[in-house]
Amino acid sequence: MADATVAPEKVHPVEAYGYAARDSSGHLSPFKFSRRATGEKDVALNITHCGICHSDLHFIKNEWGNATYPAVPGHEIIGVVTEVGSKVTKYKVGDRVGVGYFVGSCLTCANCADNLENYCPGMILTSGGKGVDGTMTYGGYSNFMVCDEHFVVRIPDSMPSDGAAPLLCAGVTVYSPLRYYGLDKPGMHLGVVGLGGLGHMAIKFGKAMGLKVTVISTSPKKKPEAMERLGADAFLVSRDPEQMEGATGTFDGIIDTVSAVHALLPLLRLVKTNGKVIVVGVPDKPFELPSYGLIMGRKMVGGSNIGGIKETQEMIDFAADHNITADIEVIPMDYVNTALERLQKADVRYRFVIDVAKTLKP
Amino acid sequence: MADATVAPEKVHPVEAYGYAARDSSGHLSPFKFSRRATGEKDVALNITHCGICHSDLHFIKNEWGNATYPAVPGHEIIGVVTEVGSKVTKYKVGDRVGVGYFVGSCLTCANCADNLENYCPGMILTSGGKGVDGTMTYGGYSNFMVCDEHFVVRIPDSMPSDGAAPLLCAGVTVYSPLRYYGLDKPGMHLGVVGLGGLGHMAIKFGKAMGLKVTVISTSPKKKPEAMERLGADAFLVSRDPEQMEGATGTFDGIIDTVSAVHALLPLLRLVKTNGKVIVVGVPDKPFELPSYGLIMGRKMVGGSNIGGIKETQEMIDFAADHNITADIEVIPMDYVNTALERLQKADVRYRFVIDVAKTLKP
Repeated sequence: MADATVAPEKVHPVEAYGYAARDSSGHLSPFKFSRRATGEKDVALNITHCGICHSDLHFIKNEWGNATYPAVPGHEIIGVVTEVGSKVTKYKVGDRVGVGYFVGSCLTCANCADNLENYCPGMILTSGGKGVDGTMTYGGYSNFMVCDEHFVVRIPDSMPSDGAAPLLCAGVTVYSPLRYYGLDKPGMHLGVVGLGGLGHMAIKFGKAMGLKVTVISTSPKKKPEAMERLGADAFLVSRDPEQMEGATGTFDGIIDTVSAVHALLPLLRLVKTNGKVIVVGVPDKPFELPSYGLIMGRKMVGGSNIGGIKETQEMIDFAADHNITADIEVIPMDYVNTALERLQKADVRYRFVIDVAKTLKP
Repeated sequence: MADATVAPEKVHPVEAYGYAARDSSGHLSPFKFSRRATGEKDVALNITHCGICHSDLHFIKNEWGNATYPAVPGHEIIGVVTEVGSKVTKYKVGDRVGVGYFVGSCLTCANCADNLENYCPGMILTSGGKGVDGTMTYGGYSNFMVCDEHFVVRIPDSMPSDGAAPLLCAGVTVYSPLRYYGLDKPGMHLGVVGLGGLGHMAIKFGKAMGLKVTVISTSPKKKPEAMERLGADAFLVSRDPEQMEGATGTFDGIIDTVSAVHALLPLLRLVKTNGKVIVVGVPDKPFELPSYGLIMGRKMVGGSNIGGIKETQEMIDFAADHNITADIEVIPMDYVNTALERLQKADVRYRFVIDVAKTLKP
């Protein structure tokens, strides 16, 4: 375990700096800390961009009860390799790479053997996790980081760094369940609930897979952006009983990205026999699930949490092949508190990305 | 539509008799009614046995709000063919056959085309349904019935009629989800929640498929019957926190047959990554389903409702090959009200079957 009396900038040998929350107010301010030296299997990267994920808000405000302070958020990280360890084989200095929601796992369990490090009980979170040496992990709202090459993905040359950053979490969070639950066959009808960071990526991946994509939203106001800007094929207003009735049994699957409590039964009614409703958001209260909503039509409700490293690389490569990036608003580091306030109000289309390289000062 | 002023025994040309509930007391008493003449695609059968399903109780007491009276329950029917229509090809007089939960469907929709008549919106229930001519359907607590051959299955010679009857509903209700959800691979670990008509069949089918089967029950008292009588491999007491903790992440899937409200989260904790909890019971209140219970480990909750005709025949043939029948208590027709009271208290191991042929008098 780390010695709690040692100042953060002295815990490890290499000085680093970033923005951290000091308490559950979640207010971020400049923070000096340190990173480990580059180990033999590690790559060091200068962080150029970091996306702001909704879960960063939960984390820094300790809404999931697992925060320790100071807390440096950020797990949608793009950077450039500056150093590689002696046993690193996949990357070299100058490579453009990404790091997502986690930076470690046991690599020996059944999940790791199946390339599902994201379900490893020993998964180490990129920020707010406990590293192998027992010290806290600090995320991507910072100037550089060190990471085992296994947990690093390659960013294709054609892909811009800023628009790529949110793929590392938002992107793979929706891509993985589309693949796993088989909602990826051309011609299938996919519903997307929630038009935020996750939802807008689901539309893009769905369209690239050849699906018919319908956005399901409480607000008819979002129809133009869903269809014209993001390319959805149709729009369904969930508060309109006639529209919902008319769409009964017409979806192969629905990906539900909403993190507020809401009803599942209307979504289950929308899917066909054998249809699937996949939840990727984490409302703070349980869903209500009437048994007959599943039984009538052999339907299911499934979950999914980010994706493994192999699949994250596949998702990035698929995105590059289909010219998919996130729709983003690039911000300077010192705008981050305002951005978080706006994110809380869903006032962003659709992801903030911090230009770390140009705007984070020591 | 049928003329409501016509007495039940005059609605159709052929006289029949059985037991019916007249109101939501659910009390059954002798009832004279009538059946349609054998159509060109119909088979007529003398009913020899009929199982008593828990849903018969819901039906005759109008607990699902869909009963009309007089109500003749019974949808686990075994009989002997007495007449076949001119276009019947599968059956001949003297064949031993079964009829299950439904006696009709549209045969033209996508579900019917996929041999999923059980999910056809036009499915006609065996009892309490509305037949093609608009008249009520009467179930198997009766001397004979007429049914389109499509909805009839063949009972293999080796299989006793009484023990076969519950296969038509209880059997296929658990067999179908084991197949559909892929919980049928030798060596898999299956949990069975609820040790009643459905649960005891799930143990038998699971064992015949080569699974390790663990019964999960609130009551340690059921351990000997689960293991010694029914052949389960292990027994887990769901009220014992230590046992539950020790079994975390050890099941490939769980089939949950309980119709009372209960917690799903402890079951989701028991399954491995990618694990499945399948509900086939219908509690009268919704389950509580916390999102993280699905997301952590990419788990799912699925439903299933009986099975299609093709699969029902496969299940019967599989059961015959593996010497599987239900564990039953055979009763005379005039014991039926007592049997229903006992069923309400789960006082039966594990299914009542009415010996219709020998005990139902005109």
